[in-house]
Amino acid sequence: MELDNLENWRKSHYANEITPKSDGKKVVLMGWMREIRLHGKLAFIVLADRSGDCQITIKEEENSKFFEKIRSLNREDVIAVKGTVKKTKQTVRGVEVLLSDFKLLNRAQTPLPLDVAEKTPALFDTRLDNRVLDLRKPKVLVIFKIRGEILRAAREYFAKNNFMEIETPKIIATATEGGAELFPVSYFDKAAFLRQSPQLYKELMTACFEKVFEIGPIFRAEPSETTRHIAEVTQMDIEIGFATEEDTWEVFDDLIPYIYSSVKKNCADELKILSADLKVPKAPFKRISYTDTIKE
Amino acid sequence: MELDNLENWRKSHYANEITPKSDGKKVVLMGWMREIRLHGKLAFIVLADRSGDCQITIKEEENSKFFEKIRSLNREDVIAVKGTVKKTKQTVRGVEVLLSDFKLLNRAQTPLPLDVAEKTPALFDTRLDNRVLDLRKPKVLVIFKIRGEILRAAREYFAKNNFMEIETPKIIATATEGGAELFPVSYFDKAAFLRQSPQLYKELMTACFEKVFEIGPIFRAEPSETTRHIAEVTQMDIEIGFATEEDTWEVFDDLIPYIYSSVKKNCADELKILSADLKVPKAPFKRISYTDTIKE
Repeated sequence: MELDNLENWRKSHYANEITPKSDGKKVVLMGWMREIRLHGKLAFIVLADRSGDCQITIKEEENSKFFEKIRSLNREDVIAVKGTVKKTKQTVRGVEVLLSDFKLLNRAQTPLPLDVAEKTPALFDTRLDNRVLDLRKPKVLVIFKIRGEILRAAREYFAKNNFMEIETPKIIATATEGGAELFPVSYFDKAAFLRQSPQLYKELMTACFEKVFEIGPIFRAEPSETTRHIAEVTQMDIEIGFATEEDTWEVFDDLIPYIYSSVKKNCADELKILSADLKVPKAPFKRISYTDTIKE
Repeated sequence: MELDNLENWRKSHYANEITPKSDGKKVVLMGWMREIRLHGKLAFIVLADRSGDCQITIKEEENSKFFEKIRSLNREDVIAVKGTVKKTKQTVRGVEVLLSDFKLLNRAQTPLPLDVAEKTPALFDTRLDNRVLDLRKPKVLVIFKIRGEILRAAREYFAKNNFMEIETPKIIATATEGGAELFPVSYFDKAAFLRQSPQLYKELMTACFEKVFEIGPIFRAEPSETTRHIAEVTQMDIEIGFATEEDTWEVFDDLIPYIYSSVKKNCADELKILSADLKVPKAPFKRISYTDTIKE
């Protein structure tokens, strides 16, 4: 079946922006064909994009030009639809889009290596080998949206509180912390390593920038057979000049509830998908010394 | 000379926040002793912090307890002062702080390896070997403030425009672009490399997240004897699904003036220090093909 070109079509809305309030509006949606039901001369498609999904209703008599193409759709085919929003009591979200024009932008591999609708669980290796498909699953996708919001909120907090963003070297000449294993890098004809912490640079920077933060990658060569290995992670660091240890704790007392509140406010739909009832923690947090932590 | 502890003293203002409007206010400033002038029973100190500087005026008779300590100060000693703001016509900024209490928090190395007041230029190697001191120079410091504002503004733009922030692997198994030289990493018992671009990951991510951006480190093992080598740089990447090349150009038409305007608005003082007259470029920008660029 022939593929269509995008041409001058552009997405007018994300799927989750189609609500009963949009009744009568002409819209252009694009995404992946998640479900299809055929009832004689009617077809119902669930079009999914990164925001959620929306039902598209297609009547053969009004869309004879592409009804055959629609009937042949496979799950996760990439599609674009033009249509008119209609309020309805027959879908969960109270809305459908009556199709007026259609494009098949690309075909998905068939059969799919994993079930995006999450009815059949896939093996962990299969999920990693098909990560892009795996990331379309609503429960997986929203984790990354929430992660993005955490980064955004943290940086907003730091900007409001006079912290300067710095980026310190990732390739370093010597270890910055005792104990952690390093990844060796061939740096031209010299021996070098990937940093396992921005610690030393960050401390030095307070002697000129006073209040700094860095959100960036760190690397730890600790061999691990678990799925939560820590070879490469994003670390959030702050450092403050003219301050005591207690002052830095107070930043965390502020920052952590700030991040939680931002996620709660800006990711309400995402939390619902995870059935997560996020509680904003109350500061001040209990301080436990390293010695006491080890004892406990 | 004995050093003082911070104890319960905390900075109440940055130096640039002391203006004639603060007349009569009690303030606590902390920073570096940049200049000192002694006139018998009077001392004038220029206290500098990351924001700028402020004159501190000290009368021996009212401050006999630490006048000797103040008289002995060396450039870049770390100090804290308490005092009262006074409007005056005798300083450039129209303001001074009359000292009431003083702490010497730390001593600078004497003689300093380079001149923070920028009257004597230092060799490039000396600057790099003493980078923290070099970064205190107003003209160097503001470059980093502006850099931070560029990152902040870009992320703000991306958040407003529905881009999701992603972070893709920095340690990769194979090259992502032809031509660029890679840094080899010993990844446990496997061969790996530092990424020279998030390109391939970023492209894949549009198939689930649609609109993505990444601001992160890339590494290029191109040997270079210049001071502008590119072994490790921060790269800003975007990628959009359901879009054409022209759509991505339009993002840059929006984004670049947005960043310029943000810097112009939020870094006005910093631009003044650089004597920079920043002009916000007008979009749309001229598109030049790769072939034409090479020809030109």
